Amino acid sequence: MAASRIAYLATTREDGRPHVVPIVFAVGDDRTTIYSIADPKPKDGMDLLRHRNITANPSVSLLADAYDEAWEKLWWVRVDGTASVVEEGAARDAAIRLLRARYPQYERWTTPFGAATIITVQRLTSWTFE
Amino acid sequence: MAASRIAYLATTREDGRPHVVPIVFAVGDDRTTIYSIADPKPKDGMDLLRHRNITANPSVSLLADAYDEAWEKLWWVRVDGTASVVEEGAARDAAIRLLRARYPQYERWTTPFGAATIITVQRLTSWTFE
Repeated sequence: MAASRIAYLATTREDGRPHVVPIVFAVGDDRTTIYSIADPKPKDGMDLLRHRNITANPSVSLLADAYDEAWEKLWWVRVDGTASVVEEGAARDAAIRLLRARYPQYERWTTPFGAATIITVQRLTSWTFE
Repeated sequence: MAASRIAYLATTREDGRPHVVPIVFAVGDDRTTIYSIADPKPKDGMDLLRHRNITANPSVSLLADAYDEAWEKLWWVRVDGTASVVEEGAARDAAIRLLRARYPQYERWTTPFGAATIITVQRLTSWTFE
């Protein structure tokens, strides 16, 4: 999963409808925790619907893939697990550290960070064309 | 949305957990219908969980984006709507026609096609970095 620079986070809204957003992410040293965060990229309030969804229903599905016009090179990896929204503390600090290490873009867009989304991997599914 | 060659389809499982898969897709001439199909790319039974989810809960969320290391170029478009799984008939025929026109890869992987997923757009949300 770490081979991809972006992933797609699906959550379930309170009314049962699905919701999907792209996220940048980092995989923890334990390989079973995935970190993302509300970062300094510009966004409006709507974008944090993901936080409200997770607070009401912690189940998430996170997909990373590589599209290629040569379809025999296609692959994807999906993590299904549970997430929590963390406003402060060690887990959020780890998210910021790991994300800064992985994305040099954060040298330019530095603050503020918002709440972190901490995903615990429960199931990993992968697919390749061949 | 048609500027992207791939999109990420989120559905809700019967137990309320979200599910996300990558899909190739085509936008109908009416601009409010999006077509995808179970295509000849190799996959196993699990992959069609999307069909079972849609049959139980037709709400879907479909995201297309372009990742770029220059984050100021980032954009995404999300469609929220309802979907149906169509085993045969004119709508599925349209899906096959539009997908073949959009993806020359289908000249190589020709058959069989399975059920089509026909999405009716209810809401379009877009985001750009700047």
